[in-house]
Formats: sequence, C-alpha cells, structure tokens
Amino acid sequence: MSGPIEDPKHPARHSSTEVGPTDAAFMERAIALAIQNVLSGNGGPFGAVVVKDGRIIAEGTNLVTTNNDPTAHAEIVALRAACRELKNFQLTGCDVYSSCEPCPMCLAALYWARPRRILFAGTREDAALAGFDDSYIYDQIALDMAKRDVAMHHFMREHGQKAFHAWKQKSDKVEY
Amino acid sequence: MSGPIEDPKHPARHSSTEVGPTDAAFMERAIALAIQNVLSGNGGPFGAVVVKDGRIIAEGTNLVTTNNDPTAHAEIVALRAACRELKNFQLTGCDVYSSCEPCPMCLAALYWARPRRILFAGTREDAALAGFDDSYIYDQIALDMAKRDVAMHHFMREHGQKAFHAWKQKSDKVEY
Repeated sequence: MSGPIEDPKHPARHSSTEVGPTDAAFMERAIALAIQNVLSGNGGPFGAVVVKDGRIIAEGTNLVTTNNDPTAHAEIVALRAACRELKNFQLTGCDVYSSCEPCPMCLAALYWARPRRILFAGTREDAALAGFDDSYIYDQIALDMAKRDVAMHHFMREHGQKAFHAWKQKSDKVEY
Repeated sequence: MSGPIEDPKHPARHSSTEVGPTDAAFMERAIALAIQNVLSGNGGPFGAVVVKDGRIIAEGTNLVTTNNDPTAHAEIVALRAACRELKNFQLTGCDVYSSCEPCPMCLAALYWARPRRILFAGTREDAALAGFDDSYIYDQIALDMAKRDVAMHHFMREHGQKAFHAWKQKSDKVEY
C-alpha cells in the first residue's frame, strides 16, 4: 500500500509536527540567548537554536552590528552553524526555535534549508515596536517592484538567461 | 529651503537612480561570474557584484553546495564581502547587480543592508524553469502561517517579549 507520491523538496506537513512538552525547554534556551545577547552588548534581542533528534546541535544570536554583517540574524547564524555541524546544506529533520518570528530573510533561508518545523515566540509586531524592520520588509516584499521603497531595475534578461542555459546543460551538477 | 523630512532608514526613491550606460558593464560582470560558477562546478548559476563610487568593491557567486551553506547565494556572499570591505553593516550609496532577481532571502537581506539600487537580469520565473525555488518561496511567504508547507508554531509570546523589554531598557545599544 502506498500513499500519494511526495515531492522530496516540499514534503507535506505531518500531524506529528505539533508542539509537544519538550519544545518549551528549547524555546527557553533561544529566549535566554536573546536576553544574554542584549546584556552582553553583542547585538539585537534575538536568539535561536537548531535541534535534531532531541539535542541542540547549533545556537545563534544576532551579531549584525558586532560582525558588520546585516545577514547575521540569530536564525541565520544558527542554521549556518547547524549545516557546518551536519556537513550538509539541508536541515532535514531539524527543528528551529527562534525567540522571535523570523524576518523574511530568515524565513526564506529556512525554506532553502528545509527543516522539519519552525517555532517562534515573539512576533513581527513585537519586533516593530522595538524598532526593527521585520514587518516593514514583509510588506515591501509583497509589493510590485515599482512600488517598493528601494529602487529596483530589471534589464539584460536575455543575457542573464545564459547562466541558466549553462546550468541546464551541465550533466554533473549538484542540485539544491 | 528644505524638502520633506526623510526617514534615514527608508529614504525616498530619487529620479537619479535610473539605469544608465555604465550599468551594463557591471551587469556583464555579474553574469560572467554566474556562468563561470557553473563551469567551475562551484555552485548554482548566480553571480553578483556590489559597486560603490563607480568601482566594484565586492563580488559573489552561489556557493550553497560547496560551502554547505544554504544562505550562500551570490547576493549574500557579495553583500557580506562588501560590508567587510566597508567595515559597516550598511551598504549606503552602493548599487548591487545580480545576474538574477534576488530570492526573498536575498531581497530581504538587501533591505537590511539598505543599498541605493538593486539591478538584476534573469527573473524568478527563469530560476524556476531551471529548478530553483525562488518563485515558490515568494508565494509561500505571502501565505498565512497555517497555510505554508513548512510547519510553523507560535507559542510562549509573553516570555519571548522579555528580550525586547531588555532591549528597550538598554541605554548604550547600537540600533540597526
């Protein structure tokens, strides 16, 4: 007996992914990292942990201003560390706990990493009240390019497609 | 005489940001990096450059599979390198040229980095035809959390807000 064929890149949600009693302890850790990060002066009030098979395999805090890296959000720091730990560019079977709702950068990064579950405590509205752009960027991304605050220009499309032609013709490529 | 007061985080678009004759050469370079990246087997068909004051200050290609880093898209690699070069977490006054439309992760990263302009050649549809999830992730992010393919759970909000309380109370914080 077999069920419907699943797309391995985009598996269906399973009922087994609901929040359980062990989740609170991992979220406590993510929030503790966030608070500690503020008190130490290392960066913004955000922390995250990546859990696999019931064990934390990586942690991250926001290091944007100390590392001069606008991508060094807690989730990105944690997921990059988890991938180094797993020696893999996918977080298959992992759960990611973040002290706050992932911003669009972090949410999309998590889509690329394909974990099992994403859990969060604070919201984009909480972040906005503390002066962060998360909610603003969600709104901007949903707009047509011409309506966004940042100037975006699309040109040389045919020339740009040459890179995709080269990719399609490559026989030994590693897809992701 | 003064114009309307501008929000420094979200400056208004200026007419001086239109595409000019010097832009093609920088885009040619981004596309050449993308093609070279495929031929060398280093990663996906994507390249990007960051330009400041008419000079390329950083370049990037997609290194997801070689670096085991799902965030190592061409734009992210280039903007992180540019920030290291500038010793700043902002790309004020910079133009970012990408061989393809930035995915939501890269677009949001660029919003956090706040460059002057974003220019691209290929589109999210071109990327989709080559097997990449860019367009899919744009669609997913726009959905309500409960409708997304990835399982997301929101809990412990009040506890999570403690990190923001700590942030608001901190007098010597570096905002971004």
